[in-house]
Amino acid sequence: MSNPRVAIVGATGAVGRVALQILEERGFAMDALRLTASHRSVGKTMIYKGQEITIEATTAELLAECDLAFVSANDDISQEIGVLGPQQGCVVIDDSGVWRMDPSVPLVVPEINADDVDGHKGLLAIPNCSTTPLAMTLAALGAKNPIKRVIASTYQSVSGTGSAAVAELNTQAAQVLAGEPTTAESYPHQIAFNVLPHIGSLKEDGYYSEEVKMRQETQKILHRPDIAISTTCVRVPVPISHSEAVNIEFERPMDPDEARELLAAFPGIVVVDDPANAKYPMPIDAAGTDETYVGRIRKDSSHPNGLALWIVSDNLRKGAATNAIQIAEEVAKRGAWLRERV
Amino acid sequence: MSNPRVAIVGATGAVGRVALQILEERGFAMDALRLTASHRSVGKTMIYKGQEITIEATTAELLAECDLAFVSANDDISQEIGVLGPQQGCVVIDDSGVWRMDPSVPLVVPEINADDVDGHKGLLAIPNCSTTPLAMTLAALGAKNPIKRVIASTYQSVSGTGSAAVAELNTQAAQVLAGEPTTAESYPHQIAFNVLPHIGSLKEDGYYSEEVKMRQETQKILHRPDIAISTTCVRVPVPISHSEAVNIEFERPMDPDEARELLAAFPGIVVVDDPANAKYPMPIDAAGTDETYVGRIRKDSSHPNGLALWIVSDNLRKGAATNAIQIAEEVAKRGAWLRERV
Repeated sequence: MSNPRVAIVGATGAVGRVALQILEERGFAMDALRLTASHRSVGKTMIYKGQEITIEATTAELLAECDLAFVSANDDISQEIGVLGPQQGCVVIDDSGVWRMDPSVPLVVPEINADDVDGHKGLLAIPNCSTTPLAMTLAALGAKNPIKRVIASTYQSVSGTGSAAVAELNTQAAQVLAGEPTTAESYPHQIAFNVLPHIGSLKEDGYYSEEVKMRQETQKILHRPDIAISTTCVRVPVPISHSEAVNIEFERPMDPDEARELLAAFPGIVVVDDPANAKYPMPIDAAGTDETYVGRIRKDSSHPNGLALWIVSDNLRKGAATNAIQIAEEVAKRGAWLRERV
Repeated sequence: MSNPRVAIVGATGAVGRVALQILEERGFAMDALRLTASHRSVGKTMIYKGQEITIEATTAELLAECDLAFVSANDDISQEIGVLGPQQGCVVIDDSGVWRMDPSVPLVVPEINADDVDGHKGLLAIPNCSTTPLAMTLAALGAKNPIKRVIASTYQSVSGTGSAAVAELNTQAAQVLAGEPTTAESYPHQIAFNVLPHIGSLKEDGYYSEEVKMRQETQKILHRPDIAISTTCVRVPVPISHSEAVNIEFERPMDPDEARELLAAFPGIVVVDDPANAKYPMPIDAAGTDETYVGRIRKDSSHPNGLALWIVSDNLRKGAATNAIQIAEEVAKRGAWLRERV
């Protein structure tokens, strides 16, 4: 049987570049690879396995010639390609928040709910980059002891906003060190040497959209709309990897040693938890890897059935590109393409 | 009546320098000001009201000639001066964690428990810099609706570690921007462009000492040992101001508007809460000011009696020097010196 023909829509973006790299790392079997981006980049080239690939515009014709498209661009493009791709016979795996909560769109973290890929209608979504590591942690622990309530505060890197924000962090940091004034474009305020309790747009309940996403997406992935969740999402001056301080309330007491065993046994999770020797997950260690790291695991001093812990994961990889490609691998395993492949 | 003769023990440190500045800003009435530091700094000078003051060693004789000493150096010095100062007739206001939980030592945030100054035995303590803004917020809200449980995750600046850590953040940031390797001395790992879920030394329950301090000190200041508290203390690459994401559970539901009113009416607290217009407390805004800023006030989506909010405060000022000087003002108001002043 032939392999799928693949497109990366938004190939020049922070996630697109990493997706290209991970396709190569994982040896994802493809019969063709097309790269698309905005008109500014069309005609430029990117390298895949040592070969130059010319960047194209995202057209209906191109999608008709592909079996699979990874989309990580902006909400408008996700809206459009999420409809157009399947119409053209191309399975779309979308990285935006546009489709995730649509009941007809599977929202998948393969380690948790790979079976939700079954019966897809040509469009699948990956979770928000701060949702995925939290959902994995909750899935690992909740399988043994049902989870009732979760409080999470995040420490999110600027690459979650995009490549321009990474450049802006560096520029502002250099300006501050030189005693010069800074200018802010990616965020409403300076991010270098500062933290911003603000990710996304304001919703009616006083939460920003990133916080609402973490709550709703986690409930959907875990098939547990009843879990009570509150999140505070904060941008910190870190280039790559999101961190999360999490308090979890279970139905029954959860022993930290048992939690460590459950987490270590869960695919994709690595326990790094030796606080006496200053070993715990950190953004600089997680960056460039596919694992979700969990540490600082301890009884929650505020609740008899509580556990406190600390999660770190590379937001561009497991938080985005790696998870998208893992979903593609599940689609391929099932042969669940929109058109017959021979 | 004469004014107290004052010493700053640890005058060259991050907090000591700010204390000197705040004494001048507030026009604290003194008949003498002595500055002490380690032998490396003895003989050097610092400026107060345009006058040079020569730095001295911290001796029993010096303390015998002072009525009040602010101590912010290291735990060994706090241990020693906390005993020696009162023996020499000098009231000590200590910034370390050494004495705070001693039942005979008042632990004071004047806006909350100024009356705990009464009956002091010559030694008073200020809370840890991450405790003070949290305790103020809880005092403001808890007066109306008793608090049952608190979960706080912090975003703490490097100046909480001291001047050397601020210099190290800048040095490391420049090294990273230049693509050079970094060296870490103030922390076990690089802090520039990273976050560390590690402040203090490990305690038996898996919490680090900073986290235990926040819990125990908050309970002591509020006279509420029964409040359930869990904290995760995280160092972030910010020079000045600590931030905290806090979830509070009350006995009854707490309306966000009522919370805003209670907070705005509390001395020393400023509400900055217009998330639709990207207005919320931030470290770069709080630095250099004495107020505790609270924003992102919203119903906790995970509990009917819960409130979520975001606190920022300058850790060197209200978190340390300002609070110490406010305590001194309470001592002065009461004339509660150890020796008779005429």
